[in-house]
Amino acid sequence: MARNTIVKAEHNAPPITRILAEFIVGHPTNGWNPSVDQEAHRTFANWVGCAIGAAQHETVDAAVAGVMELSPAPQASLLGRGEKVDIANAALINGISSHTFDFDDTHLKTIIHPAGPVASSALALAEHQGLSGRSLIDALIIGIEVSCRVGNAIYPDHYDRGWHITGSTGMLGSAAACSRLLALSVDQTQMALGIAASQPIGLREQFGTMTKPFHPGAAAKAGLMAALLARHGFTSSPRAIEAPRGLLQVFSDKTDWNEITKNLGETWEVGLNTYKPFACGIVNHPSIDGCIQFRNLGIAAEKIKSISLKVHSLVLELCGKKSPKTGLEGKFSVYHSCAVGFIYGEAGEHQYTDAVVQDPQVVQLRDCVQAAVDHSIPEDAAELTLQTIDGETHHIRIDHAIGSLERPLSNAELRAKFIGQAGPVIGDKLAQQAFDRAMTVSEQQGNIAL
Amino acid sequence: MARNTIVKAEHNAPPITRILAEFIVGHPTNGWNPSVDQEAHRTFANWVGCAIGAAQHETVDAAVAGVMELSPAPQASLLGRGEKVDIANAALINGISSHTFDFDDTHLKTIIHPAGPVASSALALAEHQGLSGRSLIDALIIGIEVSCRVGNAIYPDHYDRGWHITGSTGMLGSAAACSRLLALSVDQTQMALGIAASQPIGLREQFGTMTKPFHPGAAAKAGLMAALLARHGFTSSPRAIEAPRGLLQVFSDKTDWNEITKNLGETWEVGLNTYKPFACGIVNHPSIDGCIQFRNLGIAAEKIKSISLKVHSLVLELCGKKSPKTGLEGKFSVYHSCAVGFIYGEAGEHQYTDAVVQDPQVVQLRDCVQAAVDHSIPEDAAELTLQTIDGETHHIRIDHAIGSLERPLSNAELRAKFIGQAGPVIGDKLAQQAFDRAMTVSEQQGNIAL
Repeated sequence: MARNTIVKAEHNAPPITRILAEFIVGHPTNGWNPSVDQEAHRTFANWVGCAIGAAQHETVDAAVAGVMELSPAPQASLLGRGEKVDIANAALINGISSHTFDFDDTHLKTIIHPAGPVASSALALAEHQGLSGRSLIDALIIGIEVSCRVGNAIYPDHYDRGWHITGSTGMLGSAAACSRLLALSVDQTQMALGIAASQPIGLREQFGTMTKPFHPGAAAKAGLMAALLARHGFTSSPRAIEAPRGLLQVFSDKTDWNEITKNLGETWEVGLNTYKPFACGIVNHPSIDGCIQFRNLGIAAEKIKSISLKVHSLVLELCGKKSPKTGLEGKFSVYHSCAVGFIYGEAGEHQYTDAVVQDPQVVQLRDCVQAAVDHSIPEDAAELTLQTIDGETHHIRIDHAIGSLERPLSNAELRAKFIGQAGPVIGDKLAQQAFDRAMTVSEQQGNIAL
Repeated sequence: MARNTIVKAEHNAPPITRILAEFIVGHPTNGWNPSVDQEAHRTFANWVGCAIGAAQHETVDAAVAGVMELSPAPQASLLGRGEKVDIANAALINGISSHTFDFDDTHLKTIIHPAGPVASSALALAEHQGLSGRSLIDALIIGIEVSCRVGNAIYPDHYDRGWHITGSTGMLGSAAACSRLLALSVDQTQMALGIAASQPIGLREQFGTMTKPFHPGAAAKAGLMAALLARHGFTSSPRAIEAPRGLLQVFSDKTDWNEITKNLGETWEVGLNTYKPFACGIVNHPSIDGCIQFRNLGIAAEKIKSISLKVHSLVLELCGKKSPKTGLEGKFSVYHSCAVGFIYGEAGEHQYTDAVVQDPQVVQLRDCVQAAVDHSIPEDAAELTLQTIDGETHHIRIDHAIGSLERPLSNAELRAKFIGQAGPVIGDKLAQQAFDRAMTVSEQQGNIAL
């Protein structure tokens, strides 16, 4: 084959690595408006709930067992579990746990799940070093800013070629957050970003396996280790992110530097973060939302003759399973998702168990759901028509599903989601306390408690 | 920009991940001819010498200091140092150390330095588990086979696009070696390869910084962790290496599956491994070789009027520094390299110190060296003409430099290289003992000592 030199060779990229390092170190604490700070607290609380919610899952059990072979020092807590491990492996495990149910936050512009790689390392480090909740939230906002801006620069090409963008940008966000928490100098932070740049994590091929949630965890760990090495003088290329053979040009054909540099420190990507109300693929959400609204009309399930959906083509492409048999298959069935939305009024992890998927009442309603593609309907919309056996007809159009940027979860809804996840693991009382502490974590002076 | 789906989408690739897992688990111990086994011992010994040689370097100091922040359990030794750390971080540090002086082994077909990622994790694991030297060498051969065959499948496209192929294939070799040492099942080994596949390490942009040697170390650690997780039931895609969104199609346009599957278990890549005799870029080696041969003619340095080189264009492109000031710059100067070759009869790490680069005698001879590109001369050749102030002319043509496949280092030369590196760190006596033990490591029954 012909030998080409490199994919791209753009030599005049701005000094992105340096610009980000100066931003990470220099931006003032709480240097954004209150709504951004509030969104960061919501992001943090949602992440904690997801991590506790999956803490006893076999995915997390397997990862913890592997880590225990290293006899790690008990430096930091595993959310929802009793063990403590070293900070690097706490970042790994909490990152895995938080993404296990695919229920964490989403930066819709890039499909990055930004909290996992950043919060996992930041919390481990903050706990171990006795840092304040304020510095934790600062680090979270700044780390998310770095990974999401890098994501904006390379999305969609980078994602389309097969990278799981959460892990392949997340190590930079983690390095940023940890550099900030460790109070590294600008030079050291630049090196930390460079060390992290050599460790992109994650292939989309892993979707459906435990290695998918491994990606944010491994990214968190890689970024933390990068910051620890840089703290002790370890060096990397000062242009590791932007050089012709640096990260972005190596793994994406699209490299829009402006997405990284424009209004840096003035606009905030965490403000664009969203939280899934339902524990399944986001394409199902408008249809579930509509079914919950039907339920709220007071219609009884046994009165339903049919529920007809008009949806975007992706819904049936990704979630078209007519007769799911397992909980996992239920997540890929818009029919099951609609049925549980109507019967339970929610579609959390508990509505995607094998038992619920096989429940005769659920199966009966599921079989009444029909879906057709309508090319006039956008991805985040759906039209639903319900007919009763008595001849009534109800029609709902969802333009933006609950949980979207246009219809964000309220704090009360976020709280209910949190308790729905964490309650079965640590009990409702501790779950309520953990949510309240997470939502006000920046008020804690040190030795953060959840 | 137009949204394409993925770079390639070859759906009919052979089941590479499974094929490799079956090979890793099933190939019999010492199942190759004695020359292959001998080459593996030479590879191991050379790697040990390199790791001890750089053990006190500031690169390794910085990495150890970073790792010590985790308070690691003392599970495995750091070569040439007193500390013990957990096996994952021992793999990291020994891998960094072994590549710090760029003096380790080279698989010339791919420019992979295969020992670093594989030996670093295998030795840590073998030490901690009290395994035999035989199983260590088996794992080394099999791990190198995996990473080099994967390298053959994607080289040169993958390297040309900017990946440091040692780290970006090495995590698979490490996972293979560790899966073998842990006696994982075929299914578990397939999962370990899959987990490792999500963690390719290394950008060529890092060359010249500490993050270059970080790559083999991080690859060793990633592969070891992948095997530990798989041992406890962690899952990954069973087609993580070959699927359309698997590793090879995501990060290379060239994916020649045949390079992985053909004659697997019958031919051995470790048999193609080479060892640098000189501590600088391989393009300088033919010229240094020629200058040592001039020295061996008994010519005195002060009698030299000129040494004229005819070389491949890469020599001046990569190593054309006329007036280096530091030891590191000296490595990128064919002029300095020739001068020390003549004066010292060697070009080890000690000939690339600031002091030697600035030594007036070296500078004087360096200034007598001239180099010109000759397009008829291949990469591994050089023509040298020496003229004395008395009017004598000597001419040498080097077709293959010492250390190449055609003129491999003898065991005695390998021993001299080892002691030249390890002696200053642990003393000549222990260095000699370590070399002898490394060269016969497969005879050790357990609790491997070097």
